[in-house]
Amino acid sequence: MKTVVVTDPPRASLEDATALGEYGVATVHEAAGRVGYLGPRLRPAWSGARVGGTAVTVLCWPGDNLMIHVAVEQCRAGDVLVVATNSPSSDGAFGELFATALRHRGVRGVVLGCGVRDVAELREMGFPAWSTAVSAQGTVKATAGAVNVPITLEGQVIHPGDVIVADDDGVARVPRGRAPEVRRLSAARVAKEDASRAAFADGELGLDRYGLRERLGDLGIRYVSYSDHLAEEGT
Amino acid sequence: MKTVVVTDPPRASLEDATALGEYGVATVHEAAGRVGYLGPRLRPAWSGARVGGTAVTVLCWPGDNLMIHVAVEQCRAGDVLVVATNSPSSDGAFGELFATALRHRGVRGVVLGCGVRDVAELREMGFPAWSTAVSAQGTVKATAGAVNVPITLEGQVIHPGDVIVADDDGVARVPRGRAPEVRRLSAARVAKEDASRAAFADGELGLDRYGLRERLGDLGIRYVSYSDHLAEEGT
Amino acid sequence: MKTVVVTDPPRASLEDATALGEYGVATVHEAAGRVGYLGPRLRPAWSGARVGGTAVTVLCWPGDNLMIHVAVEQCRAGDVLVVATNSPSSDGAFGELFATALRHRGVRGVVLGCGVRDVAELREMGFPAWSTAVSAQGTVKATAGAVNVPITLEGQVIHPGDVIVADDDGVARVPRGRAPEVRRLSAARVAKEDASRAAFADGELGLDRYGLRERLGDLGIRYVSYSDHLAEEGT
Amino acid sequence: MKTVVVTDPPRASLEDATALGEYGVATVHEAAGRVGYLGPRLRPAWSGARVGGTAVTVLCWPGDNLMIHVAVEQCRAGDVLVVATNSPSSDGAFGELFATALRHRGVRGVVLGCGVRDVAELREMGFPAWSTAVSAQGTVKATAGAVNVPITLEGQVIHPGDVIVADDDGVARVPRGRAPEVRRLSAARVAKEDASRAAFADGELGLDRYGLRERLGDLGIRYVSYSDHLAEEGT
Amino acid sequence: MKTVVVTDPPRASLEDATALGEYGVATVHEAAGRVGYLGPRLRPAWSGARVGGTAVTVLCWPGDNLMIHVAVEQCRAGDVLVVATNSPSSDGAFGELFATALRHRGVRGVVLGCGVRDVAELREMGFPAWSTAVSAQGTVKATAGAVNVPITLEGQVIHPGDVIVADDDGVARVPRGRAPEVRRLSAARVAKEDASRAAFADGELGLDRYGLRERLGDLGIRYVSYSDHLAEEGT
Amino acid sequence: MKTVVVTDPPRASLEDATALGEYGVATVHEAAGRVGYLGPRLRPAWSGARVGGTAVTVLCWPGDNLMIHVAVEQCRAGDVLVVATNSPSSDGAFGELFATALRHRGVRGVVLGCGVRDVAELREMGFPAWSTAVSAQGTVKATAGAVNVPITLEGQVIHPGDVIVADDDGVARVPRGRAPEVRRLSAARVAKEDASRAAFADGELGLDRYGLRERLGDLGIRYVSYSDHLAEEGT
Repeated sequence: MKTVVVTDPPRASLEDATALGEYGVATVHEAAGRVGYLGPRLRPAWSGARVGGTAVTVLCWPGDNLMIHVAVEQCRAGDVLVVATNSPSSDGAFGELFATALRHRGVRGVVLGCGVRDVAELREMGFPAWSTAVSAQGTVKATAGAVNVPITLEGQVIHPGDVIVADDDGVARVPRGRAPEVRRLSAARVAKEDASRAAFADGELGLDRYGLRERLGDLGIRYVSYSDHLAEEGT
Repeated sequence: MKTVVVTDPPRASLEDATALGEYGVATVHEAAGRVGYLGPRLRPAWSGARVGGTAVTVLCWPGDNLMIHVAVEQCRAGDVLVVATNSPSSDGAFGELFATALRHRGVRGVVLGCGVRDVAELREMGFPAWSTAVSAQGTVKATAGAVNVPITLEGQVIHPGDVIVADDDGVARVPRGRAPEVRRLSAARVAKEDASRAAFADGELGLDRYGLRERLGDLGIRYVSYSDHLAEEGT
Repeated sequence: MKTVVVTDPPRASLEDATALGEYGVATVHEAAGRVGYLGPRLRPAWSGARVGGTAVTVLCWPGDNLMIHVAVEQCRAGDVLVVATNSPSSDGAFGELFATALRHRGVRGVVLGCGVRDVAELREMGFPAWSTAVSAQGTVKATAGAVNVPITLEGQVIHPGDVIVADDDGVARVPRGRAPEVRRLSAARVAKEDASRAAFADGELGLDRYGLRERLGDLGIRYVSYSDHLAEEGT
Repeated sequence: MKTVVVTDPPRASLEDATALGEYGVATVHEAAGRVGYLGPRLRPAWSGARVGGTAVTVLCWPGDNLMIHVAVEQCRAGDVLVVATNSPSSDGAFGELFATALRHRGVRGVVLGCGVRDVAELREMGFPAWSTAVSAQGTVKATAGAVNVPITLEGQVIHPGDVIVADDDGVARVPRGRAPEVRRLSAARVAKEDASRAAFADGELGLDRYGLRERLGDLGIRYVSYSDHLAEEGT
Repeated sequence: MKTVVVTDPPRASLEDATALGEYGVATVHEAAGRVGYLGPRLRPAWSGARVGGTAVTVLCWPGDNLMIHVAVEQCRAGDVLVVATNSPSSDGAFGELFATALRHRGVRGVVLGCGVRDVAELREMGFPAWSTAVSAQGTVKATAGAVNVPITLEGQVIHPGDVIVADDDGVARVPRGRAPEVRRLSAARVAKEDASRAAFADGELGLDRYGLRERLGDLGIRYVSYSDHLAEEGT
Repeated sequence: MKTVVVTDPPRASLEDATALGEYGVATVHEAAGRVGYLGPRLRPAWSGARVGGTAVTVLCWPGDNLMIHVAVEQCRAGDVLVVATNSPSSDGAFGELFATALRHRGVRGVVLGCGVRDVAELREMGFPAWSTAVSAQGTVKATAGAVNVPITLEGQVIHPGDVIVADDDGVARVPRGRAPEVRRLSAARVAKEDASRAAFADGELGLDRYGLRERLGDLGIRYVSYSDHLAEEGT
């Protein structure tokens, strides 16, 4: 495992990160071309949080949060701390004291490929956290790891400085270089969705709006009345 | 896989479905004779929703929500959309735009054997959803499936027109033909539970109320004081 | 399986149990020396509950809640009911009627190594429950088990009379004999954490506060600027 | 739960069942139109078994194998015993003594939606078993269930008398009424696969054999040389 | 966590341990009264191994095998090494080199509540291993733990010197003090099973042999012909 | 999702890939510095296979194997096909016919982040396969994906041309650029392990060989006799 702390990596612009956070995970993931979602195992510690920020990445040994202590110093306003372990772990590597330290630095939230604890306190503080487990199990501070190297978390590679977007649907990553483009695409998508929402609220069907109806025959989909269907099934 | 859309299947009466929804999953499942529960993996997207309605069934290919678009047109007031995939999938096949279209038609909720997304928006809209995953992962519209054929979801066969009951305890299914009977049995059960609740609140024990005490000896259950128990264990 | 009901086991003092409940799971687990946590699979039925009480233990056959009925009679004010099954089960062995009976006796909550049901009703009653599943699936009352014998639940052995602490972080157990000591250690830990919290809120780093900085070099951790890092990686 | 034993249900012909067993799960599932597979959780107790037979169905309470004892008597030569539990269970409800009794009756194997035990003995006997768990955990004989009613197992409804096909790929079900048709379709598929196998062994590509190549452009798939790709990515 | 190495704990007699190993997990678990089984998650690294031996227990930090190194020295002929981690871990804490060292000391096998690696080599050596995972992921040697203290593994408490029995059905534990009794009970059970096996091979039914037939009516189980059943169901 | 087929990416040398395959996953992963292992969920379809080869990468839609057909054409002698899906899927995207086509081209094996089928046939052919599931469930050929782009599989990024090593311990990846170095380091590690194996077979302890003994005191590990331990515990 690499044992390096990379200082001051370039970050995506905070304006882009903030805007992407407001668009939310589902919109940003679609706008980016259906890439960058971190999957269904990352869940919020409390409901209703929504953030966009720039990634500070941490790679820890399982059961050991030494490198999170190291990473705090590398964080600045607008960052989101993203923690991976180099093998599966559910231990509660992050809690309220870390959140206090990060809040002082203007950090917007944390994403953990392991456990979080002090869930009630984090909810009261309003400090957003996403994790693959909730666990009070404590960790040691004994083994080296890395800060601000690329990490892999739930199927996505995250580079320091990438945009992290997270809400009740989970977590998505936008590569630093694509942030302005995905921001524009998200805005376009929201406009399109606003129009679709209005149309659907008025009763238009997706079948018509998306031009799907003509394809159904090609795909071999037949419409049958219930009584004809029963007859066909021989019931 | 069948690729058919069955139109206008007969439905259970909306009055029965509504009443069963008010009784809730645990009561209905018990009243039905402990059958019809869809198991612990189907969880609500937000807490506190409770619905009863008639099933419109959908069978999708994993990662593909084409047939949900087809199904919307088959829905009417009082329905609950029930979606299965023909192999395991966590993709977010359903979100806020579908909910908008369904609400226009008077649909009461959705049950998904895959993922849901736009969880925050669904909670704000108050549109009820139960699913086996939350996932922002998008789907394509490329592969045929079926609407209003019998589907299997989490161990239960669901026919179009069956009653679907769902709340914080999960989801249950009542066959269309049994809806009036299970409604009556649920009412009886609630009356009985009201009496039990009052008795338990007054301090009566289940051991006495359910006549279990006499059976304990037959089952070989002995009462032992703590000190005698320690002596027996040789501790 | 043992089929015995042990009556009136000695309990930890209610004062200790109550105080430990107020400290919460993460603090108590740490104060006890990082032992006694029941792991990430035990989740609260509703958010925000926090209890400390003395264990009444129950061992059930899967799909059978007869012994919970037996156990209710053994409960008294300040107790927490702790239920294990002798093989994996998700069935809803506990619901609102049991909660009503237990509340009458002053019981503070329930911990279940199986399923809970009537989640909405428990939330309305404010009766705390932790479980490994939510399930409406009913159980029978057919098979013998045990009450107030030591049980194993999620990796911890729980003796009757032990202190059970539970909150949004999960559940912890403090052996009866250690309760006064762990209460003292928890108080000391809270005092220490209050000081750390204030320091972190002021911007002190854990690296400095915990004296970790000097160890980093020994562990082979190097600080590298982003541009030097790129050069090293040959990117 | 129903508590009935249905005697002498009609069975698919043994000739069809045997032939389908020889074709194997993947072929039969494809020939049937990609329906009937019981999914990836049902695994063989030992490698290399392959059976086709007619289903005798059993519905048990979790942790209770009483109904398997009842079912043995309903079995005859060529049958496969198929056991479901009415909620999730991993207990070892079936072992070597049952296998001995079933072998006497000419039963060809067992499929269990719970645990199997005596795995080494079953392998030595050559008695085929598929299950969702291996577990030595014993069961009681205390609770009623059903024999030869339709059961749901891993997403498939199985009626008594249906054909069960099982091998190292898992388990599939063919409805009794479709057995002759699926047998014919399987034979045709095998012939077609033999031709494809020979062609592939000679170097023909699926792209050409299945006429996929022309579709690639429509789907937006572009071919790019490695160096052009690097240039596009800006790496 | 305790950080102690307990030397020379008393062991069950090797004769008892060896005999129990020959009876196998399912028999010993039943003979002991259906207690002591370590559940379906502990699987053999290779098929066909069967051991009985005396436990040397190890408690490790996740991702850290230092204490296994310490434990090797505490092992002697006839022992089985039993390793738990104090929170969930799949890392490959044990491989061929440890097996070589243990074989030199006459150790009969290893049981790991984490990962094993070098599976092909262990199979070639014929060194038996059971684990909850196979993983090549390496571990560090940085954190203290304990040897020969009681540990909890998959729901069972294991004391040093207890008998460990393991085969293709998993792993069971017999308390040191009960070993002679469980050996006798196992012998009796085997004799009884031999008689049952012969009877079942001759066609006797469990319904008759275990006197279950008379109970069926009490439990409400009815026998119905297939045609009557169809009529009742209204199909 | 990208929809591109990259042709003729540079590969690691086949000599290096072959040699790394012979060293095996655990050795290569350690020699590489404990990076590159694909974790415990990727399991061999049959025991005893061991390969080293160069990666051709494939990204598929779940339930759709179109891109595997496309990828076959891009494969040449010494390659290993590596397939990821862009969201979780267990479908059997690969079977015997693909293996026949790949064998013709000299491909050494396949690694699938989804399901494999025709397991018995693959074992008979001796074609190695690793996967996260075994499933007979068929797939469609309807949705675009990519070939020879970097993919993420079980926490590792795999580039086309990287070395893939796989055996009974799972799968590891060595970056193309590091293959010669990791080959050298593996050879050195094997030499060192040979010496350790001989020493352990002679009875030397890891505590001494790795110089761990002196560290134990620093870590707070105490040696206590069993009787002293009992006294300390107050038992």
